[in-house]
Amino acid sequence: MKSVVYLDNSATSMPCQKAIDNINSALCNNWGNPSSLHLMGLNAEIELSDARRIVAKTIGANDDEVFFTSGGTEANNIAIFGAVAARKKRGNRIVTTAIEHPSVLEPIKTLEAQGFEVIYLKPDKNGVVSESDIYNAINEKTILVSIMLVNNEVGSIQPIKVAADAIKKTGAPALLHCDAVQAFGKLNINVASLGVDLLSASGHKIHASKGVGFLYKKKNVHIANLIYGGGQEKGLRSGTEALPLISGLKGAIEEIGNINNNLSKITELRDYAINKLTQNENIVINSAKNSLPYILNISVVGYRSETLLHYLEACDIYVSSGSACAKGHKSYVLNEIGLDAKRIDSALRISFSRFSKKEDIDKLCQALHKACSILRRA
Amino acid sequence: MKSVVYLDNSATSMPCQKAIDNINSALCNNWGNPSSLHLMGLNAEIELSDARRIVAKTIGANDDEVFFTSGGTEANNIAIFGAVAARKKRGNRIVTTAIEHPSVLEPIKTLEAQGFEVIYLKPDKNGVVSESDIYNAINEKTILVSIMLVNNEVGSIQPIKVAADAIKKTGAPALLHCDAVQAFGKLNINVASLGVDLLSASGHKIHASKGVGFLYKKKNVHIANLIYGGGQEKGLRSGTEALPLISGLKGAIEEIGNINNNLSKITELRDYAINKLTQNENIVINSAKNSLPYILNISVVGYRSETLLHYLEACDIYVSSGSACAKGHKSYVLNEIGLDAKRIDSALRISFSRFSKKEDIDKLCQALHKACSILRRA
Repeated sequence: MKSVVYLDNSATSMPCQKAIDNINSALCNNWGNPSSLHLMGLNAEIELSDARRIVAKTIGANDDEVFFTSGGTEANNIAIFGAVAARKKRGNRIVTTAIEHPSVLEPIKTLEAQGFEVIYLKPDKNGVVSESDIYNAINEKTILVSIMLVNNEVGSIQPIKVAADAIKKTGAPALLHCDAVQAFGKLNINVASLGVDLLSASGHKIHASKGVGFLYKKKNVHIANLIYGGGQEKGLRSGTEALPLISGLKGAIEEIGNINNNLSKITELRDYAINKLTQNENIVINSAKNSLPYILNISVVGYRSETLLHYLEACDIYVSSGSACAKGHKSYVLNEIGLDAKRIDSALRISFSRFSKKEDIDKLCQALHKACSILRRA
Repeated sequence: MKSVVYLDNSATSMPCQKAIDNINSALCNNWGNPSSLHLMGLNAEIELSDARRIVAKTIGANDDEVFFTSGGTEANNIAIFGAVAARKKRGNRIVTTAIEHPSVLEPIKTLEAQGFEVIYLKPDKNGVVSESDIYNAINEKTILVSIMLVNNEVGSIQPIKVAADAIKKTGAPALLHCDAVQAFGKLNINVASLGVDLLSASGHKIHASKGVGFLYKKKNVHIANLIYGGGQEKGLRSGTEALPLISGLKGAIEEIGNINNNLSKITELRDYAINKLTQNENIVINSAKNSLPYILNISVVGYRSETLLHYLEACDIYVSSGSACAKGHKSYVLNEIGLDAKRIDSALRISFSRFSKKEDIDKLCQALHKACSILRRA
């Protein structure tokens, strides 16, 4: 592939070498069915267990609390539908935020249409829901609280631990689910410190392949199944495990290195970007300073996102106008944090990876500068 | 990997070169998110569409009737739960067979526990459900008929078309679903000739990777969602598509060649195997002659399946004692076709692929002959 400036890592990321190597190794040398009783099955099962151990370690979980899925969306769906089905006799209320990913919002809207009461917590201008709102929303009828760790459009970090405390204090029969798709591999996650019962993550945001993710489910927490069959993944998620991709995920995790060092590097890069970008008088920053630095949302006021996107793509620079899953629809996240139509219509999401370089930002700034000089203002 | 005799292709199969090449090409050169609005997204979307076209062509469907999933299990679950949710106001009866795969039986048992009436059609000694039983089971309250095309343990082929005719004749509000996981790529499938509304298939049984499959859904047939989110796969199956695996599936399909020629070759091989195996006086054949020749179920009477399995594995020969998904549980399929405990306890499933050779069978027969001479009879 020719050299490009890829700054759309929150949509998907380039598979890293170790992920690719592991995938190939499984495809060529370890393609048995982990459920087969013979040696080829056993070898596949061993690799599966090893991957499970590596995943569990990164989030401070036990091996038997990690369940592989086809990705973050499936993990979110299993968690939400499974938790609500298991607890529906104990209450009717679901608490979430207005800025969750569609793979959380859509299942919850489906439950709302079935009669569950849903509280959508509003974020402040920094994209963060308030601690007091969380406390006020959770009552003794609350059966599920689902709050993302990092927002996918602006990078804001939510106070998950507060939700855990609120559940404990109110004695709510709620399970706490956290969509950690944008946080996994980028922030140090410890499921015990967060106080979550369920946590979802995806492989393709951290340089593994599309098609793999996992759900953390705390020991002794029971949720209903979404998919039934041969009883793989201890009965929670039937279907022959996608061993090549799971092994690839293991490789991607092993290649992450030190999460805190990466975070420092990306913070520096993000600050460099803010400094350079804001030299362009049309550009304003939409992400708050204390957001996860991997995601930087900006507006190039007066220029339409899509026009900019295509101008940049002609320069081999890739960013996004919002969530890839929104496919060009107006951002409800930016609307919820109180931006006006002009800011929303001109928004770009720049999302870094540990492979991002200062030169990438230089090229982006240069291209945006040129875009503003030659494109017609909207 | 060292040279082995792999005759467990109905559990999973060796990824073929074109599948591996396509997976690598997607991982290295086409790793954009198909939902991204920029060129890298578009390139991924083009490959996705191309794979969809190839899949559709092999089953006589339109491109927009093919929905990618994480495998056969998920496709079966989407079809069954989706069809019943969409039609539950029109009736209460589900018709299936007693020898479906767990990924069909378990969802249906879940629905039965919720109050739906389920008719489990019994197979005859050849593993085939009778046409008159199908007709008698389907009434005006039937909302789903789910019958597999090829049974995964004995290879028996079910009369799907009869179910389609019965639904039409009785005016039942039923959708017809067919689990074609063991048939896809091995039998010529035409969804219109079969008369199905929904059909499931898997990649890893036909030399693609584990972790990919698809659901055919006839145009204008509405079913409810199982997974909600960003609206991928025309809203039926949200979640970023596993493009590397989907592209690999495309490659595996392209490498199949002529299905009828393969079938002739495998029939010859299967007949050769029957001839050679039955020279061993302990061996009886459990699969009927008109079964799909890719699957040959035998019993080595007097010897326990698991003992044989491990003896063979020590000779680098891999077969299974039944379905991999059953993980060693007693076969309900063999029980349903009326075999006694002795036959069931000594059953082996030999499953071929187009890579299977006569020498593989020779080695298997030799090893079984030796096993019978040195192993203690159960």
